[in-house]
Amino acid sequence: MAKEDKLYIGVDLGGTNILVGIVTQQGKVLATAKKKTKSDAGTEKIIDRVVATCMEALETAKLSLNDIQALGIGAPGVVDLKTGVVIEAVNLRWTQFPLAKSLKDKLKIPVAVDNDVNVGAWGEYKAGAGKKQDDLLAIFIGTGIGGGLILNGQLYNGAFGTAGEIGHTVVHANAPLGRRTLENTASRTAIVNLITSLVKANHPSIITKLCGGNLNNIRSKVIKQAIEEKDELVCQVVQEACHDIGIAAANMVTMLNIPCVVLGGGLTEAVGPKIIEWIRKSFDDTVYPSELRDCKIVEAALGDDAGLVGAALLAAERLKPYTSRQ
Amino acid sequence: MAKEDKLYIGVDLGGTNILVGIVTQQGKVLATAKKKTKSDAGTEKIIDRVVATCMEALETAKLSLNDIQALGIGAPGVVDLKTGVVIEAVNLRWTQFPLAKSLKDKLKIPVAVDNDVNVGAWGEYKAGAGKKQDDLLAIFIGTGIGGGLILNGQLYNGAFGTAGEIGHTVVHANAPLGRRTLENTASRTAIVNLITSLVKANHPSIITKLCGGNLNNIRSKVIKQAIEEKDELVCQVVQEACHDIGIAAANMVTMLNIPCVVLGGGLTEAVGPKIIEWIRKSFDDTVYPSELRDCKIVEAALGDDAGLVGAALLAAERLKPYTSRQ
Repeated sequence: MAKEDKLYIGVDLGGTNILVGIVTQQGKVLATAKKKTKSDAGTEKIIDRVVATCMEALETAKLSLNDIQALGIGAPGVVDLKTGVVIEAVNLRWTQFPLAKSLKDKLKIPVAVDNDVNVGAWGEYKAGAGKKQDDLLAIFIGTGIGGGLILNGQLYNGAFGTAGEIGHTVVHANAPLGRRTLENTASRTAIVNLITSLVKANHPSIITKLCGGNLNNIRSKVIKQAIEEKDELVCQVVQEACHDIGIAAANMVTMLNIPCVVLGGGLTEAVGPKIIEWIRKSFDDTVYPSELRDCKIVEAALGDDAGLVGAALLAAERLKPYTSRQ
Repeated sequence: MAKEDKLYIGVDLGGTNILVGIVTQQGKVLATAKKKTKSDAGTEKIIDRVVATCMEALETAKLSLNDIQALGIGAPGVVDLKTGVVIEAVNLRWTQFPLAKSLKDKLKIPVAVDNDVNVGAWGEYKAGAGKKQDDLLAIFIGTGIGGGLILNGQLYNGAFGTAGEIGHTVVHANAPLGRRTLENTASRTAIVNLITSLVKANHPSIITKLCGGNLNNIRSKVIKQAIEEKDELVCQVVQEACHDIGIAAANMVTMLNIPCVVLGGGLTEAVGPKIIEWIRKSFDDTVYPSELRDCKIVEAALGDDAGLVGAALLAAERLKPYTSRQ
């Protein structure tokens, strides 16, 4: 790294894990650390563990807090950007928790807070697959489906701070509540549930063999394997999910003329090109006008680092460099 | 009007009619004029008719071109904002037509061009139902369904210039092509077609009587009457259309946290409150998170004037005041 490169701490705070990275202003990750969140242990313990993970990453990088300009953190919930208060984070059992203040008090550096999916989108935009794009829609397919939106080179949070929630847009208007949204039909959870119920209803599939006879073991890798072996049932279920994702993405590109869609999350990473191909097909059938088929649809590039890189770079964007201590 | 008020010409150029207004910078309409477009007669004739309609409006207002700062025009198609070229307008049989240059050559005043639905949205935003809002989604329900988007106080055209086309977003992912988009299921055309085919299939409805036995006469007013008389078939068809509109609107508010949706177009104007109520119900069931139910859903206020007022005020926004003649 160049000597003059400013350094930031990026934190991806999830319901299960805390991921921390020491990140240059160019988006290069110098060191990382990871701990379980242990969200059951209560707020104070969670904050202690975030701080401990930060210190571990600093130690690995042979740096101290004095070398750091600011910290950025992505939290799994609704966030008030201005105050750094987490309004609600169900996984962490937080309501109205002053996350920025709490970390600032302990670490004595400026802290920027945003939603976890937003920081992931920002990471892909600044240092990942969307690096050379003006605007960007990022879609992360996992337990749920998260989305982030970059418009005019800025993270678009919206007036209420929850913009970009593409998983909660409805693509099946006539389906019953609970089966109408993109997340309802196309998240990994939805895919695994549908595969499981079809197999239990005696539809033939090699997936039972691939997961060792235990349908509770259907992970992204198993799905990838089944697709590679052209298992008809798994291919069809995943393709139907991709159909819905392509439509939801096309709806947004139709509305906003976004030139690039980045697809991330565990399932996309595991299965890769085939998922992009299926989404592309449905996207092209839907987007209007047809010239918008020029929109790029690409795999995310940063994997699990997207959140911590994005959080660090968002802190760099939003906060003035740290110059004096209180 | 205040003496110092600057004046603009606003033109709403449709496939059927040309509507022109002389509009103050406050959005007040001083005079209007209207002619048939006669799009069959060819480009030159259309332009001549636009010019003649402008002159007629000026005459009614007892003004001349010397009193006018600029002209704004909304065209029914894809427009290049920077050059004022209409890239494609199917109704007018135009491709790559330099509309701004053509009018500027004749009238010797600055000309701003945008899409007809966008100028309607801008009109409602600056001088109509969305006057006090920060951001706005406008939906016009007519032969088709058009949409316009105001973000951060600016008309959001998008990189390709076609942003806001909510009628082309898909809400029925599993329906066959041609029956998937909002326009496919919720435009007045779709509503009338469905009512007609249900009546022809002998479903009981008073609409046959209301339109004098001729199902080709189903207009917005007839639909309004049938709804007022609580005709079950008509109510159900319109309510299903409103269900889809509410979902499409909620999808955008979920994605963009827009605080206000304005609904316009002939059907909305005729039927009014009942349509808003049905759309509201579906919107509230869909939007995420539930706090976004605070979003206002209101009827458009300018009626047929939205386009010409918006076009005039967009010219005021985009063009410097006219000071010298070539």
